[in-house]
Amino acid sequence: MSGTDSPTPYQPTERTTLTRASARGSYDRPVVHAILDEGYVCHLGFVRDGAPVVLPTLYARVGERLYVHGSTGSRPLRMAGQAEPGLPVCLTVTHVDGLVLARSAFHHSINYRSVVVHGLAHQVIDQGERAEALDALVEHVVPGRAADSRRANAKELAATAVLSIDLAEVSAKVRDGGPNDEPEDMDLPHWAGVVPVSRRRGAPVPSDGLTPGIALPEYLCAL
Amino acid sequence: MSGTDSPTPYQPTERTTLTRASARGSYDRPVVHAILDEGYVCHLGFVRDGAPVVLPTLYARVGERLYVHGSTGSRPLRMAGQAEPGLPVCLTVTHVDGLVLARSAFHHSINYRSVVVHGLAHQVIDQGERAEALDALVEHVVPGRAADSRRANAKELAATAVLSIDLAEVSAKVRDGGPNDEPEDMDLPHWAGVVPVSRRRGAPVPSDGLTPGIALPEYLCAL
Repeated sequence: MSGTDSPTPYQPTERTTLTRASARGSYDRPVVHAILDEGYVCHLGFVRDGAPVVLPTLYARVGERLYVHGSTGSRPLRMAGQAEPGLPVCLTVTHVDGLVLARSAFHHSINYRSVVVHGLAHQVIDQGERAEALDALVEHVVPGRAADSRRANAKELAATAVLSIDLAEVSAKVRDGGPNDEPEDMDLPHWAGVVPVSRRRGAPVPSDGLTPGIALPEYLCAL
Repeated sequence: MSGTDSPTPYQPTERTTLTRASARGSYDRPVVHAILDEGYVCHLGFVRDGAPVVLPTLYARVGERLYVHGSTGSRPLRMAGQAEPGLPVCLTVTHVDGLVLARSAFHHSINYRSVVVHGLAHQVIDQGERAEALDALVEHVVPGRAADSRRANAKELAATAVLSIDLAEVSAKVRDGGPNDEPEDMDLPHWAGVVPVSRRRGAPVPSDGLTPGIALPEYLCAL
């Protein structure tokens, strides 16, 4: 594939075909990647004893693969280590961009961008891939940080499980713009519009006991 | 119960007993309610054909009950209408408060507050409760708005399904404070501390075609 070609979109499946507001859906890799790369906390769903469990957890993307990590003692990580051919998961990332206030209560909405990934989570065993995933999990949150911290030692690596989920069965959904009021409601005496919502990072707060003379690193100044 | 008594905490169950970092867990109703009331988008998990599905959706709390809503045609709402004695769900709300940068990669973390609710989702049939839930879903996002918009008409009500989930099997988890580095890492030459993260609302943007003369309502000025 040459650099000027668009990458092949993700192939829709029965469960990634949107049943509602399908015009808001996308299977484009650049759209999906951009939504994933902007976030760092996902909601990871799995099934335990027949019931759903949804937990917030950090993730990072490396190419067409997502990584999550946790203690080797945590439930989903233990379950994924035991499941053959992998633990069925659904990993969802959502960014809220605005509150949409319509003239009618019915048309109130949220502007958002979300990605839903279905797949099998596998424990990453290969030590090279594990190291790459753990670096990515730090870099994904604060680019530049992995090289400016002590890397995991053998004991820490042994206590950490890493799961991978391939990006194959994936969809994005994006709602933007103003309210979609009914034509007959346009003259109602209610304010209508969008309240923008965004996530901000504040000024970094040094740790108690930080060695005097350690300046704020440049990669944090830019946040 | 008098006003000075603390309400009874939620009773831990096997699946709301934290297996990791249990000191961060809480079953206190005021803690759980505060986390739920600060958010408005949850991640709702359910099981479809044996696999997990996690979708972002609006929610609102009324007392010890949560409500979500959607089109009568949407999958989870259809499934909940057909499931007896209800659709098993897991509803999770997460607020990110900060990025915790430790001297070691291993101790990097996120400050967050989350609530995980396990339960059965039921379709709300009672028209009074449906109306109250729909008002709450608008009010929860923008207090003051329900009275300042056209309420749903019969056709819109017929197209909307409302699910309720009782707050019974519930846990909160909160991580705050600075990095927990190992004693032997304290003198490493890496900056350590917390980058605060918060969600902000920007200046409201009026809709195209807003009737001239409609001022920004007071409940939006305070956001």
